[in-house]
Amino acid sequence: MVPSPVMLKPALDAIGKAIDQRFDKLLAVPDDSRARLYEAMRHAVIGGGKRMRPLLVVAACDLFHVERDRALRVALAIECIHCYSLIHDDLPCMDDDDMRRGKPTVHKAFDEATAVLAGDCLHDIAFEILADPATHEDPFARLELVTELAVQSGPAGMAGGQMMDLVAGDVTYDLAGITRLQQLKTGALIQWCLEAGAIMGRASEGQRKALRAYARDLGLAFQIADDLLDVEGTSAKTGKAVQKDAAAGKATFVSLLGLERARAQANALIDQAIGHLSGHGPEADLLRAIARFAVERDN
Amino acid sequence: MVPSPVMLKPALDAIGKAIDQRFDKLLAVPDDSRARLYEAMRHAVIGGGKRMRPLLVVAACDLFHVERDRALRVALAIECIHCYSLIHDDLPCMDDDDMRRGKPTVHKAFDEATAVLAGDCLHDIAFEILADPATHEDPFARLELVTELAVQSGPAGMAGGQMMDLVAGDVTYDLAGITRLQQLKTGALIQWCLEAGAIMGRASEGQRKALRAYARDLGLAFQIADDLLDVEGTSAKTGKAVQKDAAAGKATFVSLLGLERARAQANALIDQAIGHLSGHGPEADLLRAIARFAVERDN
Repeated sequence: MVPSPVMLKPALDAIGKAIDQRFDKLLAVPDDSRARLYEAMRHAVIGGGKRMRPLLVVAACDLFHVERDRALRVALAIECIHCYSLIHDDLPCMDDDDMRRGKPTVHKAFDEATAVLAGDCLHDIAFEILADPATHEDPFARLELVTELAVQSGPAGMAGGQMMDLVAGDVTYDLAGITRLQQLKTGALIQWCLEAGAIMGRASEGQRKALRAYARDLGLAFQIADDLLDVEGTSAKTGKAVQKDAAAGKATFVSLLGLERARAQANALIDQAIGHLSGHGPEADLLRAIARFAVERDN
Repeated sequence: MVPSPVMLKPALDAIGKAIDQRFDKLLAVPDDSRARLYEAMRHAVIGGGKRMRPLLVVAACDLFHVERDRALRVALAIECIHCYSLIHDDLPCMDDDDMRRGKPTVHKAFDEATAVLAGDCLHDIAFEILADPATHEDPFARLELVTELAVQSGPAGMAGGQMMDLVAGDVTYDLAGITRLQQLKTGALIQWCLEAGAIMGRASEGQRKALRAYARDLGLAFQIADDLLDVEGTSAKTGKAVQKDAAAGKATFVSLLGLERARAQANALIDQAIGHLSGHGPEADLLRAIARFAVERDN
């Protein structure tokens, strides 16, 4: 029997609290004229979001009994990258969003220049955390985390997907195009979370391949669910603007497949994702629950 | 006798050519809808700039007979970071500059969103290059390059200095404040160039300390020279807008010290920088020439 997403709540609460505590310590506001920069970073990273990526990292690390403290460092790094990308994405020249995680976006609460710099700094901090010996005793593991992150967040990953999204006004994507766009834009960082677990836990090549397949299916299902929420959700629940893609005339999984087929596709992908975990016992229940949650959430 | 900056010309030409060739190969434009992103990166990094930071890296590496191919990888990484910071700095919400290196800035030649992403991607690529085994055979050397870069480009380095500069409208800096601001904003990356040479060449702690001192004096002198050019230079020579600081009412070394004393201070710092190279023979002549050039250039 597949575990219910209900078991997720305590895990998400615990990870949220741990991440907040670590950011609070990491981003102590200095007593000089850089204070505003740290306040902007704190605004972006503390007290909000689903912490899906940190939870994925910790759940993947748990498969291999990685020390919790080390797993949380890796989780913190990926949340830095995720938040940096949200700050830049929300800028007026990008998605021009005023609200994020139920709060004003960084450029609204501060200003655009501070938002650009706060994003840039979180970007650096992620690499600083990963390269530190406290993350893993093996230098090759740390280097692999760094390299994979640089690739998955750069032009061959997340930022490449964002560029594909930017030109979506001029290019008409078909289902293969949208799939590729989303695999880069959202899927790349999700894949990194699982790869990071495999690297931290010195997984076998077979285990790593299975986790990569789980990540690919989960990432796509997660994005289809986002598209469904964009159509069916409310701002109050999602904490951000909805129905922006439709308004912009951009193709989405829902516009290409219709509501019914999009939902069926998301569910099929989640079954497939969970199938890739068959080599693991109950220690993978959290990853199974995350997969169910990805398509059953209302925010 | 201190070498004349005249010997710099062939060195700068050679490094400029080598860097352009490598960027051309590294940033080959893909045949998909990310093409615009790569074109924007190419616009920013190919065929322009003094290539001061790459030259500093190579000159520092030469002290320790580091293979040229490896030195150039490190030079390429720091130029990625320098160019990313210029792209973001030039944005309308930051310095709002239309021209850079005699060409339209990236957000002018492309658009703001593409400029944000192009900067973010160059940021990632720098770390990817450094973490690669082709950069150094010792994983600890690669990790040290990564860590130092993350620190020197983040909130405790370049980006921190940019934040200090952003709030300069509300904060009045005295000479100590401006010195600190510039040490972060410009000095941090220059320091990284010399540290990188020391890391690549497995320099002794004493050698590294001397290079760090050289970098500190050079960075400050370089910035004072920039302030002097901002007052005395022309757009035609510098390839960018001039007298912006004065127009914005920001304190500079020139506004605080006056032209004469600022120039004297820059020259004294350069003598001091060259003094820190006394442990080296003719193999440090290039670093000596760079120091002279820093205060004698007209762009």
